[in-house]
Amino acid sequence: MNVSGRPTRTIWPSLDGTAVEIIDQTQLPHAFVIARLTTLDDAARAVSAMLVRGAPLIGATAAWGMWLALRTDPSDEGLAHAYSTLVATRPTAVNLRWALERARTLLTPVPVERRAAAAYQTALEICEEDVALNRSIGAAGLPLIRAAAERKKDGERINVLTHCNAGWLATVDVGTATAPIYAAHDAGLPIHVWVDETRPRNQGASLTAWELLNHGVPHTVIVDNAGGHLMQHGEVDLVIVGTDRTTASGDVCNKIGTYLKALAAHDNDVPFYVAAPSPSIDWSLHDGLRDIPIEERDAREVTHLTGRQGNGTVGAVNLLPKGSPAANPAFDVTPARLVTGLITERGVCAASTEGLRSLFPEK
Amino acid sequence: MNVSGRPTRTIWPSLDGTAVEIIDQTQLPHAFVIARLTTLDDAARAVSAMLVRGAPLIGATAAWGMWLALRTDPSDEGLAHAYSTLVATRPTAVNLRWALERARTLLTPVPVERRAAAAYQTALEICEEDVALNRSIGAAGLPLIRAAAERKKDGERINVLTHCNAGWLATVDVGTATAPIYAAHDAGLPIHVWVDETRPRNQGASLTAWELLNHGVPHTVIVDNAGGHLMQHGEVDLVIVGTDRTTASGDVCNKIGTYLKALAAHDNDVPFYVAAPSPSIDWSLHDGLRDIPIEERDAREVTHLTGRQGNGTVGAVNLLPKGSPAANPAFDVTPARLVTGLITERGVCAASTEGLRSLFPEK
Repeated sequence: MNVSGRPTRTIWPSLDGTAVEIIDQTQLPHAFVIARLTTLDDAARAVSAMLVRGAPLIGATAAWGMWLALRTDPSDEGLAHAYSTLVATRPTAVNLRWALERARTLLTPVPVERRAAAAYQTALEICEEDVALNRSIGAAGLPLIRAAAERKKDGERINVLTHCNAGWLATVDVGTATAPIYAAHDAGLPIHVWVDETRPRNQGASLTAWELLNHGVPHTVIVDNAGGHLMQHGEVDLVIVGTDRTTASGDVCNKIGTYLKALAAHDNDVPFYVAAPSPSIDWSLHDGLRDIPIEERDAREVTHLTGRQGNGTVGAVNLLPKGSPAANPAFDVTPARLVTGLITERGVCAASTEGLRSLFPEK
Repeated sequence: MNVSGRPTRTIWPSLDGTAVEIIDQTQLPHAFVIARLTTLDDAARAVSAMLVRGAPLIGATAAWGMWLALRTDPSDEGLAHAYSTLVATRPTAVNLRWALERARTLLTPVPVERRAAAAYQTALEICEEDVALNRSIGAAGLPLIRAAAERKKDGERINVLTHCNAGWLATVDVGTATAPIYAAHDAGLPIHVWVDETRPRNQGASLTAWELLNHGVPHTVIVDNAGGHLMQHGEVDLVIVGTDRTTASGDVCNKIGTYLKALAAHDNDVPFYVAAPSPSIDWSLHDGLRDIPIEERDAREVTHLTGRQGNGTVGAVNLLPKGSPAANPAFDVTPARLVTGLITERGVCAASTEGLRSLFPEK
């Protein structure tokens, strides 16, 4: 999507062909900094230090890391070392392992002298596939926004609420939950986005707001507490969120607080959609609340907040009295009964075993 | 309640009888500072600059401000000036006007030479009445916590979730939503409180956590997004919140985000109680969603957060990209259908016209 009017991705090979470039997301939204990766260790550090985040983008970065590694050591040992270095950067990231296994399987039979070129090609393909998948989600979701527009008076803005960042910054481009939003905006629909700030890590206030601002999509940041009130007063036409993990029965594990918004949407007859690319679906799970373990993260994410200080530098402040403990469950599960529909790359379906089977009969 | 093991109120006449002392709440939770008020203007500034906040405490401060004023000018003009100065400090605060009108009505017929003494007596009475009312709410709410304890295994902690600060810092002492919590803790029940941080102003993380910490009540601060997840997993036995305004039909207008917690409690069969002292009940209102206007506050409360910096000083950071707007509705309305019961100073009743009438037949 656009940054300062210029189409930009989150990761790309440098023009001179000697490096991979990324947006250093640790600096957002306060500074737009491009980081240059030239070695395997650069790529590993970009993932582990969260210069890149979001499952699809982590996978893409790992694929590019394979290329950077094989440029200098394309041997079997080099391949094994690159795989093991990269896979250890974020142990629980599903896309990371998937991208690395795909690259390793594909590169192992390739003669050593052609491995680097093949790794480059694989990384490009993984990136293009991600963008194509997201564009399909956008195309599938656009009619839902058009339908909301038809329920409004002429020219009245369509209000979409989203939580966290399932935007282009989490992918190679376009995003998942944001894909229908960008598609609607680019099609000229008068769309406006309520952006949940998404405590504790504030991915909404920092990343989603930054993306929408740069692409020119009207938006307003709200605290996570405000969405229910807006829905009660007809200020939300639909909700679109992402998902970290979706069960075969349509339960959705997403950033903490998603469940509360789903309850409010249900209570106010506001459609609640989840952008669920098929790689997010775990076909072996059938009960999200029972089967998905919820990561408990560092309490410091709750107690401390980082932002731009008066003098322009970025710093952290502690909100709590000295001595008060904090807890930090990072995700919650929204039961399928609260989800109006899943927006997949193959179309929209009911959040149910039958709904998903209708789109993915091979599973 | 206790601060560093010593019983403390939020406002009291100084031991030497020459001033009124308050806790400067703008410094909490990072510093415990007592401010000394010796003039009418001191009292007015304490209210307008929010050194004191919370409806009952604002009323009490205004009553003490009348005494401070009449000490130096007990004339009719002095009384009128004190009234008009104090009533203008927070134009929409109901208790402020109520306390001032009570004082004015009572003091007007009193001879000038006895007015200061009478004003002192009135301020004392208003404070004692507030504490007594809150203790009654505590006594009425304690059996609800005992009932929750009986559903637990022996010695297992009872988890209460609360939102915002309806604690002793908002009153003269004891608090409203916290009254049953302190009563249970002081009775030896193993109570633990989940404290919603309560964005945007973080009254939970800064004030409620500070109170509970100082009184020795086990507690854990969570982001506002986390409560639903905790309820889904049986980690919340009951919810107790306060109310800014209650309709005659039992709808509750409280800090933004309360409605989302009520929805989650309802979805998980967790009892949801509201501590509603009768002065919070507006007997003329019957539909909270339709009739209660919601204050839209400064967007800066959303964009900026204040806390303790690494060097120990207190400062603010801006969370948003430059150019992203924010909205800040300050309250929401929880419909009576989601409220298990109202805890009033006369006992617990259903959140309904009939329920309230059974306790307040004279209304």
